[in-house]
Amino acid sequence: MPSYIAPLEDMMFLFNKLRNNEKYNEIEKYKEVNSELVKDILEEAAKITQNLILPLAKSGDDNPPILENGVVRTSPGFKEAYKKFIEDGWISLSCDPKYGGQGMPKTVSAFFDEMLSSTCLSFKLYSELTIGAYNCILKHGSDEIKNKYLPKMVEGKWSGTMCLTEPVCGTDLGLLKTKAEEQSDGTYKISGQKIFITSGDHDLTENIIHLVLARANGSPKGTKGISLFLVPKFIVKEDGSIGSRNGVSTGSIEDKMGIKASATCVLNFDGAVGYMIGPKNKGLNSMFTMMNLERIVVGIQGLGISEIAYQNSLSYAKERKQGKANITKSENGADNIIEHADIRRSLLNMKSIIEGERALCFWLSQQTEVSLNHNDEIAKQQASDFVSLMTPVVKSMFSDMGMEITSDAMQIHGGYGFTKDLGIEQLYRDNRITPIYEGTNSVQAADLVFRKLVNKDGDIIDKYINLIKEEIKTSEEKVQPFVKQLNYYLEILTKFTNWIKEKIKDSKDDASAACNDYLKVLGFVAMAHAWIKVLEASFRDYENNKNFYEDKIQTANFYFNRVLPRVESHFKTATTGSKYIMDYKFN
Amino acid sequence: MPSYIAPLEDMMFLFNKLRNNEKYNEIEKYKEVNSELVKDILEEAAKITQNLILPLAKSGDDNPPILENGVVRTSPGFKEAYKKFIEDGWISLSCDPKYGGQGMPKTVSAFFDEMLSSTCLSFKLYSELTIGAYNCILKHGSDEIKNKYLPKMVEGKWSGTMCLTEPVCGTDLGLLKTKAEEQSDGTYKISGQKIFITSGDHDLTENIIHLVLARANGSPKGTKGISLFLVPKFIVKEDGSIGSRNGVSTGSIEDKMGIKASATCVLNFDGAVGYMIGPKNKGLNSMFTMMNLERIVVGIQGLGISEIAYQNSLSYAKERKQGKANITKSENGADNIIEHADIRRSLLNMKSIIEGERALCFWLSQQTEVSLNHNDEIAKQQASDFVSLMTPVVKSMFSDMGMEITSDAMQIHGGYGFTKDLGIEQLYRDNRITPIYEGTNSVQAADLVFRKLVNKDGDIIDKYINLIKEEIKTSEEKVQPFVKQLNYYLEILTKFTNWIKEKIKDSKDDASAACNDYLKVLGFVAMAHAWIKVLEASFRDYENNKNFYEDKIQTANFYFNRVLPRVESHFKTATTGSKYIMDYKFN
Repeated sequence: MPSYIAPLEDMMFLFNKLRNNEKYNEIEKYKEVNSELVKDILEEAAKITQNLILPLAKSGDDNPPILENGVVRTSPGFKEAYKKFIEDGWISLSCDPKYGGQGMPKTVSAFFDEMLSSTCLSFKLYSELTIGAYNCILKHGSDEIKNKYLPKMVEGKWSGTMCLTEPVCGTDLGLLKTKAEEQSDGTYKISGQKIFITSGDHDLTENIIHLVLARANGSPKGTKGISLFLVPKFIVKEDGSIGSRNGVSTGSIEDKMGIKASATCVLNFDGAVGYMIGPKNKGLNSMFTMMNLERIVVGIQGLGISEIAYQNSLSYAKERKQGKANITKSENGADNIIEHADIRRSLLNMKSIIEGERALCFWLSQQTEVSLNHNDEIAKQQASDFVSLMTPVVKSMFSDMGMEITSDAMQIHGGYGFTKDLGIEQLYRDNRITPIYEGTNSVQAADLVFRKLVNKDGDIIDKYINLIKEEIKTSEEKVQPFVKQLNYYLEILTKFTNWIKEKIKDSKDDASAACNDYLKVLGFVAMAHAWIKVLEASFRDYENNKNFYEDKIQTANFYFNRVLPRVESHFKTATTGSKYIMDYKFN
Repeated sequence: MPSYIAPLEDMMFLFNKLRNNEKYNEIEKYKEVNSELVKDILEEAAKITQNLILPLAKSGDDNPPILENGVVRTSPGFKEAYKKFIEDGWISLSCDPKYGGQGMPKTVSAFFDEMLSSTCLSFKLYSELTIGAYNCILKHGSDEIKNKYLPKMVEGKWSGTMCLTEPVCGTDLGLLKTKAEEQSDGTYKISGQKIFITSGDHDLTENIIHLVLARANGSPKGTKGISLFLVPKFIVKEDGSIGSRNGVSTGSIEDKMGIKASATCVLNFDGAVGYMIGPKNKGLNSMFTMMNLERIVVGIQGLGISEIAYQNSLSYAKERKQGKANITKSENGADNIIEHADIRRSLLNMKSIIEGERALCFWLSQQTEVSLNHNDEIAKQQASDFVSLMTPVVKSMFSDMGMEITSDAMQIHGGYGFTKDLGIEQLYRDNRITPIYEGTNSVQAADLVFRKLVNKDGDIIDKYINLIKEEIKTSEEKVQPFVKQLNYYLEILTKFTNWIKEKIKDSKDDASAACNDYLKVLGFVAMAHAWIKVLEASFRDYENNKNFYEDKIQTANFYFNRVLPRVESHFKTATTGSKYIMDYKFN
């Protein structure tokens, strides 16, 4: 089993030194969320993830949930762990106190999301979808619905799902076939099949609240005829108690490459009672509230799995003796592999990406909170635009980098990484879903290029590039060499952006064929921006914690030397256009 | 289950049009291996792999071998398939007719290796190690040993293994602990534990011939005290019949991420009778005969798995409708995803790498045959040097590209790629061993940089670069634009090579930290060279098979636009040196 120590020092560094978004700091309700409180919470979070959640990873992988007589039984130990997890109030961390939540901002809950992802992604998914459904109901549900469902969800007694995918439609929800027939009492009867439903059924909670996309009778074809419905597994009575079973049944559980302990279900809706959430035929908009926040969390999953992969690679490299280093420290026999330059390079590659991601994510958490909770509509809108811009980037980059990092971790472990004993190959398999679900990374890249660069509020990408330029201007003297490097790549990003904007107008296929590369370029530059902010804080505060800051500066140096320059090949290859790709005739 | 059609047209194209190594064509014994014969063989090979081997992949993955009362039972169906496989003489394809082989050159057998890898790598491994052991015994064994063991191995009735790894030594064989105690009759008693032994035990053959590295009593420490021993599972009597069980037992079978149907064993040698092969204390040299040829085959494994991943991605992309393309062909609803620019880009990326690899491998097969079978010692040596140079490149590049391609195949399949139904995720898991075994890809890169660039015969890499320059000079007019691009990257390769050569002298860590990037740069350039040869043949012969050659030209075009330029970032990042990497203090 891999070991794990939550990276509290790095998290507290970000919270203490990089919480410098003015607008975020104006949000009234977070003024009391101070450093001491956050430290206490994260220390408790570290304990529960390290002790309670981590051991579930292997047992869950070895014993996936089973469907028995129509009932899904989760892996051994999950039920007991879940009980403790909700008793200690962990589901409610970021929820509204009005419904029983603790009201913590994403600047805190994102760290907890990371710890959960590091220790057992499958376990995390049972509560993660609850939070997704909670957010969606909170924003689009009527007061009646909110009062009836949210307290139990916040408590963790009821869980949630999002039911979008059907056999013929994943990415393309316009093809959706599930029907909703309106009844005389204003409710709907939902019928159809949904597949790949994460936590679609299980035995951890008393009820499961499905949020289902379906087409109401008489609604138009395509995406404009889709509405959102709340469909509980058990009907909830007037008094809030649990009534009879609704018309939802579990067809099967998917047999998957990874996250085996997460029950991914085929759900059959057979005239199930549903309640419309939000306006008719605007279901996609409502669902996207859930999707967008969820996508950032998928990015955090990649980050979390990367972190545990790094930690275990590092400790293995310190213990495994193999071969003499160029400057050997061993009189007789082999050196620890951490003495080998190539292993060090690989470890620093992981570390510099992980810490860059965490800093970028912290920046995004502040923006997200401003977009949701600031009083000023303009501030809110601007933050919201940055969040939309960076959501596909964080989702795709972090999940892709998670593949690179878990793969490199296997390489460092050699044959022991490929066998099941140490649990390293499981990290790789578990992370492998992250570039696929919540919209494949190619879908994210298309979303970025065609919908997020420029919107009704203006030229978002220009605003973002200007924000970076503004922020790196004001930096410390010693940060200048890094800024100089970043400026070089900012120039490439700008050129690439202009190229993309041109192509979107008159040669969309060029933009489509370039979108994955563009996303990577933006991602690497965004991480470099985050690193500049880390560097500023490090040089400024250097004397107070020399070892920690020296480590940051060296790690940043690696990022700028070895990671950031990947930008160049992406730019060069992508801007060769697409004519030769579109003209090609596949046999 | 994935489908598979052997790429016979491409293979025959290479055999007919790119078999232009003069020295190869001088080898007397291959003069009768003509196009008709090869076509017949490959057609039969296609049949047996498509029909008999392919179905084993899924059943083997679902039902790995089990160890029961000390006996390893292979997956259902493997025994029957193996029987048919050896009855039809497939193991003997490339073996010496003197011992019952068919004497086919590697220019042919490499294609069969590819087909086997595409259809079921686990099954292939049972015979692959036999060929490895065969090659080693053929070169280093006494006539007595050869006559006693080789005919049964060529027939496939006995199989082979290579036993190197021990718990404390994988890469670093100097640490090896297995002992060999000489007996009065000249035999040895072998004692020790070997791990990760592919096909270490199974029920497919009557006997298993282990080639074991061990330290004879009185031999020095480190790599200079290692000898090679032949240790049969069952003692072979004077008359060649099978006698009593030798002191080798199976401790356990590894539970692995992929190639689950291949029995990877822990073998315990407990005073087992062994016969020394080759000179005492020169065991590593003898084993490397086996290792080097084996490493090229590992590259071919990556190529084979890439091919089947591509074929299935292509057919899925032609059938799966999702989203409207920029220029939609659908009146109502979604287009096949093959209409989307980004999916086309991904498919062409796969195809251009696969076909480049196959052409490069064909070039290498010719060189290998010259190195083994030419009459002229100088020609032999020169070819041997090129083979040594390119062995780590082919092993690492093809296995790494196999990861990229199987991963991209999963992305194209979306959720259906992550579930077990279609068998796509298995390709990814099965390929995941290839960058690890037979020396991790980092070990290959270090081998390339520190041992293969320059050797006692001179400056091999310079000779290789000059060979490329020479060969691309003489090419067709229409190939010129491609040559121009290649020249640009050859220039980078040359600069990088000179940098590496400098660093090897006085700053080895710089070279170590750059070796993976250097290997990639050399690999991409080598593939481009292979593509130039394909292009020459294509333009020259264009009128005779327009569709086929047009396809080649377009695919090459993609390679030069989108794949080859990756060279740049590798060069730029790697040449930043290693001081900041070596100085870094890992906590």
